[in-house]
Amino acid sequence: MVKARIWTLAKQPVGIPRKEDFSCIEKEVSECKNGDVIVEAEYLSVDPYMCFMAKKVPFGTPMIGTQVSRVIESKNPDLPVGSYVVAQAGWCTHARLPAKSFQIDNWFKRSEILIPLEPLPRSLGLGVIGMPGNTAYFGLLEVCKPKAGETVLVNAAAGAVGSTVVQIAKLKGCKVIAFAGSDEKVAWLKELGADHAYNYKTTSVTDCLSEAAPEKINCYFDNVGGKFTADVLPHMADYGRVAVCGSISNYTNDDHSDPYCDPVVKAKKLHIEGLNVNRWSDWTQGLEQMKEWVLEGKVKYRETVYEGFEKMPEAFIGLFSGDNIGKAVVKA
Amino acid sequence: MVKARIWTLAKQPVGIPRKEDFSCIEKEVSECKNGDVIVEAEYLSVDPYMCFMAKKVPFGTPMIGTQVSRVIESKNPDLPVGSYVVAQAGWCTHARLPAKSFQIDNWFKRSEILIPLEPLPRSLGLGVIGMPGNTAYFGLLEVCKPKAGETVLVNAAAGAVGSTVVQIAKLKGCKVIAFAGSDEKVAWLKELGADHAYNYKTTSVTDCLSEAAPEKINCYFDNVGGKFTADVLPHMADYGRVAVCGSISNYTNDDHSDPYCDPVVKAKKLHIEGLNVNRWSDWTQGLEQMKEWVLEGKVKYRETVYEGFEKMPEAFIGLFSGDNIGKAVVKA
Repeated sequence: MVKARIWTLAKQPVGIPRKEDFSCIEKEVSECKNGDVIVEAEYLSVDPYMCFMAKKVPFGTPMIGTQVSRVIESKNPDLPVGSYVVAQAGWCTHARLPAKSFQIDNWFKRSEILIPLEPLPRSLGLGVIGMPGNTAYFGLLEVCKPKAGETVLVNAAAGAVGSTVVQIAKLKGCKVIAFAGSDEKVAWLKELGADHAYNYKTTSVTDCLSEAAPEKINCYFDNVGGKFTADVLPHMADYGRVAVCGSISNYTNDDHSDPYCDPVVKAKKLHIEGLNVNRWSDWTQGLEQMKEWVLEGKVKYRETVYEGFEKMPEAFIGLFSGDNIGKAVVKA
Repeated sequence: MVKARIWTLAKQPVGIPRKEDFSCIEKEVSECKNGDVIVEAEYLSVDPYMCFMAKKVPFGTPMIGTQVSRVIESKNPDLPVGSYVVAQAGWCTHARLPAKSFQIDNWFKRSEILIPLEPLPRSLGLGVIGMPGNTAYFGLLEVCKPKAGETVLVNAAAGAVGSTVVQIAKLKGCKVIAFAGSDEKVAWLKELGADHAYNYKTTSVTDCLSEAAPEKINCYFDNVGGKFTADVLPHMADYGRVAVCGSISNYTNDDHSDPYCDPVVKAKKLHIEGLNVNRWSDWTQGLEQMKEWVLEGKVKYRETVYEGFEKMPEAFIGLFSGDNIGKAVVKA
């Protein structure tokens, strides 16, 4: 019998999550029957969306999430022992995945076979060649539709999604303005090719944009929302496109009262679109493109790796204080 | 010499405009020279957008606005005495319009020849067969893109734009939910074919939508913004479309702090687009379609007519307390 450690919600987070909100339990993994596999986590993902989810479920619920895991027991000929999957198994060290979990429609429950990543690290299946990479890829290209010569603004730009958006926007011939929360992050963004990069903690968004974008912003890839967005909208160009990808400022703000300034939306004929990466069915095509760009050196990535399954809450909480550069993952 | 009476801003409005914010002056209209016409106002328009504009210009500025006016003196062969125009002449009884004012690109300065409306009243050139009609026509059809069988929500639905949106949505085979601010307005909306109509002053938007749209809302034509919109967004269907046409709640709210709830925009992959009717170049085609529908009895309209140029401020202020049903105009 395989024993799994599982992080559950001890209480529903209020504001920024704290360690006390999480509790680690042990549980036996149920038997591997016809079509099932048992997997062991190698890397586990922490992502900002988990905060939004955690505030919506009862305490006691296992935390949801994705992991790159290795098949250690198999009754499924398509998934022999030693193969790797991207499993929607939650914050756990071990799990049983029935065959149907690779077929179901619900994105938050569907596991997938990991696309071959060698010689790259498998952890990238949670980052630049995974959900965050595809979010940047589809979100920028299909929602913002940037044209060469246009100006693209990205916030939380040193994160897993933002750092990829910066680079894809440059690949498409755009001028890129990026915001992040430390001077170290800003320095990295300049290495990645951002034309302007600012530390939002030590500058005024309004002043920075007046300086960096007198021509106004055509595409705004928004990971933050709230006041940041209210400050940005007046700097948008007519017919500007806003991809509402994340709103990390609202995930921890329980009244969700931060503004989109709707007179500006109207006056500038802005086009604002919510972006959930699960809408695109050509998922693997996105991953293959990201892998190609990474292998060609056109897209660079960083990871913040926490060692040990017990670090899950710490890694997760770090997202909201900006501890990570690039993708945050936990090595089990 | 022709003398014009002109309403100017005596002070910049704070919150809802008051009579003291306006001042009526007299001024001689300058000489009618080569290519010019002198016009006399027959009907003058008051529209909510004027509040947003008034808060942005210095006091002393003549109020901007559109009027249906008659040419009373002409040095322009295209515009003989007795012809009618939709003039961007502001809140004034008489004005000189140079030939170039019929050609310039700036929508807020361009005058146009009135399309033939007989046997309909000329005042409709400011309403259902004018800017508000075209706003409803293009905004609903090109921004919301409603499909037959979908559910459309409209607020400020008894106004010039809203009442037209209700009817076009019904013509396109949609289910329509409408909100307005009095029981009399609600009764009229039901006459116009709204499947559900509510008085937002005596009901809860959230409760009404739970009842009327368990299938969720595909198209939201928003004239109000602010809290109304924050209450609506959770009731939107995935891939719902929001046309941000007006935000009357924000025109009088000087901090513009009312929310769009961006986690919802993301989660539901909403598509929110600002709508300024001046973006559509096939303007006359819109007017001709509206006229046809009115003549066929497919689109009905109401007007609230104030008698006398001196009533301009009163008519305008009435927009923000919901005094008017349908289009508010002033008969000079």
